[in-house]
Amino acid sequence: MPGRTKYLLDETDMPTQWYNIAPDLPEPPPPPLHPGTGEPAGPDDLAPLFPQELIAQEVSDQSYVDIPGAVLDVYRLWRPSPLFRARRLEKALGTPARIYYKYEGVSPVGSHKPNTAVPQAYYNAAEGITRLTTETGAGQWGSALAFACATYGLDCEVWQVRASYDQKPYRKLMMETYGATLHPSPSELTGAGRAVLAEHPDSTGSLGIAISEAVEMAAADQGARYALGSVLNHVLMHQTVIGEEALRQFELAEDTPDVLIGCTGGGSNFGGLAFPFLREKLAGRSGVDIRAVEPAACPTLTRGTYAYDFGDTAGLTPLLKMHTLGHEFIPDPIHAGGLRYHGMAPLLSHIYELGLIGAQAIGQRECFAAGVQFARTEGVIPAPEPTHALAASIQEALRCKETGESKAILTALCGHAHLDLPAYGAYLSGAMTDNELSESDLEQSLAGLPAGG
Amino acid sequence: MPGRTKYLLDETDMPTQWYNIAPDLPEPPPPPLHPGTGEPAGPDDLAPLFPQELIAQEVSDQSYVDIPGAVLDVYRLWRPSPLFRARRLEKALGTPARIYYKYEGVSPVGSHKPNTAVPQAYYNAAEGITRLTTETGAGQWGSALAFACATYGLDCEVWQVRASYDQKPYRKLMMETYGATLHPSPSELTGAGRAVLAEHPDSTGSLGIAISEAVEMAAADQGARYALGSVLNHVLMHQTVIGEEALRQFELAEDTPDVLIGCTGGGSNFGGLAFPFLREKLAGRSGVDIRAVEPAACPTLTRGTYAYDFGDTAGLTPLLKMHTLGHEFIPDPIHAGGLRYHGMAPLLSHIYELGLIGAQAIGQRECFAAGVQFARTEGVIPAPEPTHALAASIQEALRCKETGESKAILTALCGHAHLDLPAYGAYLSGAMTDNELSESDLEQSLAGLPAGG
Repeated sequence: MPGRTKYLLDETDMPTQWYNIAPDLPEPPPPPLHPGTGEPAGPDDLAPLFPQELIAQEVSDQSYVDIPGAVLDVYRLWRPSPLFRARRLEKALGTPARIYYKYEGVSPVGSHKPNTAVPQAYYNAAEGITRLTTETGAGQWGSALAFACATYGLDCEVWQVRASYDQKPYRKLMMETYGATLHPSPSELTGAGRAVLAEHPDSTGSLGIAISEAVEMAAADQGARYALGSVLNHVLMHQTVIGEEALRQFELAEDTPDVLIGCTGGGSNFGGLAFPFLREKLAGRSGVDIRAVEPAACPTLTRGTYAYDFGDTAGLTPLLKMHTLGHEFIPDPIHAGGLRYHGMAPLLSHIYELGLIGAQAIGQRECFAAGVQFARTEGVIPAPEPTHALAASIQEALRCKETGESKAILTALCGHAHLDLPAYGAYLSGAMTDNELSESDLEQSLAGLPAGG
Repeated sequence: MPGRTKYLLDETDMPTQWYNIAPDLPEPPPPPLHPGTGEPAGPDDLAPLFPQELIAQEVSDQSYVDIPGAVLDVYRLWRPSPLFRARRLEKALGTPARIYYKYEGVSPVGSHKPNTAVPQAYYNAAEGITRLTTETGAGQWGSALAFACATYGLDCEVWQVRASYDQKPYRKLMMETYGATLHPSPSELTGAGRAVLAEHPDSTGSLGIAISEAVEMAAADQGARYALGSVLNHVLMHQTVIGEEALRQFELAEDTPDVLIGCTGGGSNFGGLAFPFLREKLAGRSGVDIRAVEPAACPTLTRGTYAYDFGDTAGLTPLLKMHTLGHEFIPDPIHAGGLRYHGMAPLLSHIYELGLIGAQAIGQRECFAAGVQFARTEGVIPAPEPTHALAASIQEALRCKETGESKAILTALCGHAHLDLPAYGAYLSGAMTDNELSESDLEQSLAGLPAGG
């Protein structure tokens, strides 16, 4: 079916397994460490936070994990998601490149996050858990978990980064419509939150702080567990349905991608699209060039250090070997582009260290300019996060225009911006700055790395 | 393919013609009248406001009109839209009924409105027009026209009802992202707006007033035309792609609807889904029971009168024979459910008078309760408008549960609520009232009908 605007799969063609890339890598990723002993963290260390099945998936040496039928039943509400050929954008750019985007905004909450929220809620419910706690920054993850908890009858409690809580009232309303309970973070409800507020009463919060709060609350309640929306191996694995579908859709298009470009915050959307294509590349069946794009305001891959660091600010999690800006990193509260986590998924950091993917950072004004151009040609207003990948895709398409190369570019349009429109307002009014992370702020943030990291 | 959660069509199976129901009706609908002469309004009366092709479609006696290729190219960005079987909602209700919903929220702006915004912008651009003016209430239509104008390079100027302009800042940002210019209505920019403000400086506005402003501005500029998002024949005709697709999708499902339930404001979403099914019924190929659902706060079909009335408040339009609450009707500004226009599409009003469809009004708390139940089972948070149809569909499904009937219910889920979440917040907090239109307000509003109406 070459020549189409979009490539659809029937729900019977939906992947029935997630792909775990770890066993296929030339070297295994470094394990998480217990912060007290310095020894690899075992399943017992994680049991207060995650259900057994997710702990098993986190350390699995199997290349494929079956997706439960009850999860497929919910996936079917929006999956398989469409693969689009951006013909109208190509025409506007005057490029010989072929630009494809895999669109995850068709999910009920408008992003890729339910791909992992749904199985996480399912496994917790199956193991008798009645309540999940989590953090959310921009709000995409909290919305997804609220939706997933509604589908399996779980209570859902979300700590939303203060800056986002105040700036994004619609996010709170969406989560509450699904039945979730919201708290701004830092909050007075946890020791971690109270400690931050004691020192910084006006703290605008960070994902690291919100994670500390959600983890603390889950650990204190036998019937509760914690859910994380990115970073961990099992989260990235759940997202591989994106890439597995895209592979089949490229067969329908009778094409193959030369370049794959995704945005990276914690790394789950990027890993979800890229890992199945990387499998093909490692097996010699593809020569695709894979690139991660991150904000200049939070440049973990391009300017962070590769070291053992905590996943949260209070130091409650195991130590993870990852690209990090330091767990005390506080993003600029006016940064509108999302992707603000201080670390990068350990699995993705390892793959980057192996030289299997490239990375670049882009300032947010160029990203929003790409978002506006995309909206006015392709219709969908992209969420701030994937505008980073769109900006890099447009750079590549314009390079092709100069060289005359007709590359196929695949990008991950992981969500729409319906609840992020004030960021577009800031861009259109000229109020937006690029707020690149300064050398001094980076040095200060990295100084907080744990000893021996 | 019975047993699926959703029924998809490939873009090559997209309808290539719109369906015009007028020639198939047992009696022709009464014509619009020139308010000065009382004679039927002719093409010349409409030429300052609409391009020739749309005027021709408005009075067409052809059953089918070809969709231009350039329109199909844009439709392909989201069409064909999916037909869903609401299996999770059915289970929650414990009903033997089969509930299907045709989902138009997959369009870039999240509603059915682009189905007509795109061809309207196309025909204007093709006839050399450079600027379109329009009104918007809840904001769905203004967003759709802003998107459509961006795709064909037209300027777009939108008068947004004041109450909505103030309560829905995200709508303004969406339209501006597509490049449109926004004004709250009533405005000081037009004679119609100034006249209202002189008498009511704090006016919260109405669709009727905003239409007057947009019409006035278009008529004053040779290079500009006006675009209407509902009510007129050509608008309803453009929406019939919804029903034509649904007919094909029911073939895939190997099922047929026993009941079709849609919400009605101006009537375009309802007509779009219902008219192709009504064609089948008139031809004896279907026994489907077709029902319109409207808000108790704006009950044009169930409590309005069938008379000639103006389409706008200032009396600038031809007189239309329709169910109306009177063109001076001002909806309660706290009404959150949309569907606030004072009249009903003349074509739909005529069909109702012929006894071919039924109608009922529902209070908005029942509607939002249905919306929340739908969100927590099917995932999508429905726009306020289609919650009216969902509430009636749930009523029908629960009747089936009592009687044991296994009816197939088809409803029109014409959009999602991402930009209407404050309405859900009002419902969840208990602040929402049913604000049924009072007898005295109805009498006062009907007293403004033109003489001889």
